[in-house]
Amino acid sequence: MPTKILQSIPKENYIDTTPGSLLRPGVDSADSIRGRFEKAIRAAQDSICEAISAADGTPFRQDAWTREGGGGGITRVLQNGNVWEKAGVNVSVVYGSMPVEAYRAAVGHDISGIEKGSRIPFFAAGISSVMHPHNPHAPTMHFNYRYFETEEWNGIPAQWWFGGGTDITPNYVVPEDMAHFHGTLKGVCDRHDPEYYPRFKKWCDEYFLIKHRGETRGLGGIFFDDLNDRPAEDILAFSTDAMNAVVEAYVPIVTAHKDDAFDPKQREWQQVRRGRYVEFNLVYDRGTTFGLKTGGRIESILMSLPVTASWLYDYVPAEGSPEADFLDATKKAREWV
Amino acid sequence: MPTKILQSIPKENYIDTTPGSLLRPGVDSADSIRGRFEKAIRAAQDSICEAISAADGTPFRQDAWTREGGGGGITRVLQNGNVWEKAGVNVSVVYGSMPVEAYRAAVGHDISGIEKGSRIPFFAAGISSVMHPHNPHAPTMHFNYRYFETEEWNGIPAQWWFGGGTDITPNYVVPEDMAHFHGTLKGVCDRHDPEYYPRFKKWCDEYFLIKHRGETRGLGGIFFDDLNDRPAEDILAFSTDAMNAVVEAYVPIVTAHKDDAFDPKQREWQQVRRGRYVEFNLVYDRGTTFGLKTGGRIESILMSLPVTASWLYDYVPAEGSPEADFLDATKKAREWV
Repeated sequence: MPTKILQSIPKENYIDTTPGSLLRPGVDSADSIRGRFEKAIRAAQDSICEAISAADGTPFRQDAWTREGGGGGITRVLQNGNVWEKAGVNVSVVYGSMPVEAYRAAVGHDISGIEKGSRIPFFAAGISSVMHPHNPHAPTMHFNYRYFETEEWNGIPAQWWFGGGTDITPNYVVPEDMAHFHGTLKGVCDRHDPEYYPRFKKWCDEYFLIKHRGETRGLGGIFFDDLNDRPAEDILAFSTDAMNAVVEAYVPIVTAHKDDAFDPKQREWQQVRRGRYVEFNLVYDRGTTFGLKTGGRIESILMSLPVTASWLYDYVPAEGSPEADFLDATKKAREWV
Repeated sequence: MPTKILQSIPKENYIDTTPGSLLRPGVDSADSIRGRFEKAIRAAQDSICEAISAADGTPFRQDAWTREGGGGGITRVLQNGNVWEKAGVNVSVVYGSMPVEAYRAAVGHDISGIEKGSRIPFFAAGISSVMHPHNPHAPTMHFNYRYFETEEWNGIPAQWWFGGGTDITPNYVVPEDMAHFHGTLKGVCDRHDPEYYPRFKKWCDEYFLIKHRGETRGLGGIFFDDLNDRPAEDILAFSTDAMNAVVEAYVPIVTAHKDDAFDPKQREWQQVRRGRYVEFNLVYDRGTTFGLKTGGRIESILMSLPVTASWLYDYVPAEGSPEADFLDATKKAREWV
């Protein structure tokens, strides 16, 4: 199956300078939702990388490519920096046709009336990022904002939706850090719809569940998908605000903890939690699964994995320890604001 | 879905002394294929752990459990030994009913006429093992031998089959080591059927493919599944011989390399290859997938993952290097004997 799916997306042609737009010239206008979403993710990539690079004192490396027929990607990675072990920010714009199975992985549900073996024309653009700091007391953060369209096809009308979210994965519970992170996200949500934060916070806790462990990957944030219940314009504005709040939500927490003292046991615990991060991403994450199945650029997709991770047999934190408290918070979602 | 599936297998009751048999008393006789296969895997677990423990100078820790209604498991793990970072040998005997989806994961193909939502009564027994040494020049080894039955059900006749294999994952190509390892396995195969080795060697190369990378996990060995083309008696004898050849095939290679000198670059390469090991196991491995979906004991299933692994962005070995040679061998299967 994967071989067949791989045919759907042409191979990358690496380029030295990034074009102003990755959209198809003459097809997608700059003021369409496609055009404005691309503009938003490109700007967010620039500003977030600039802030992280300044906080770390290390530049990002960039790999950029286009694909025949339109689309392309820009991956920026900072590896073995002063603060971050690995920080990556990807943007990509993809056109193609996908098999029903990949559509299911992308959308998370079936649409009725699609024959097995059919291929659905789609457009997808997104920004995605994971940042893993060195210090066990400084949290990992992930965000992803994406816009998806399927074209009118076989009598099924054209569809569009937004998805995304920002979530945090510390190794210890620091309530005031979580109040800052969740509070910042809530602030963004509330400016658009007071129902967003409670709804997307719950969705995040449910989505990032490592089912075979009964633990969440981290301590949540916001997550939404298939969002098309109001004008695209409005969700575009919300998504743009959310991606632009990442630095404010996250960087102060890392700055506060990047030089915290830690002992080998705390480092070991961090490595075990990184193992859980890998388990979630490879087994459950919809974006990773979709990317691996559709022949996306592997190094960009798996940029999300930590430089180092560990699996220790039957690792159980001591009762009453800060590690046990963290584990408890992953088993029963808490409220932070 | 996973919650529903988890109901199929009762929780573990941990026990201090392992019972003579994990089969259902009065139901499965000692001289049935079930009984004789259990005896073979229990004996192999004992003898292999004894040999590894002697080579390492460290005892195995044991966790044993039974489940209400029959079945149970014995996990033995040696962690942070002198030679091995982690070595685990599991045996388990499981009864239950599995949903069609898990059946597909177990068998790898549909059987026609099964309604969605149906549950199929099954019996499964197996031994599985992974051993990761510290030294980058000493290979990781995996083996697994299993016997599966589905009961007569809804007009579909009872089925049985064997599956298994032994495969090696070094970080460097050492042709004489591979000749020894593959040669030992070929010797076992040839005693049962001269067509086994070429057939199972090819199957192994195909099965352990990390599809999204276009690389195999390691340098192969033998692999077979759904084997029921001759009397169960004969395949039982072959499987027993194969598990009993593991020590001879593997341990001399580790003994020869456990104290090899290595530099930080070689250690880094080992860690990157361990990352690939994790990718294969979590994304593709049928046993892992089946285990995570059927509510097996997570720590026993994920015992296969290395203590440490690494993901470095766009890690490309230098042209002409031993690392590049290894990568080449994972992209195009070689013959070793």
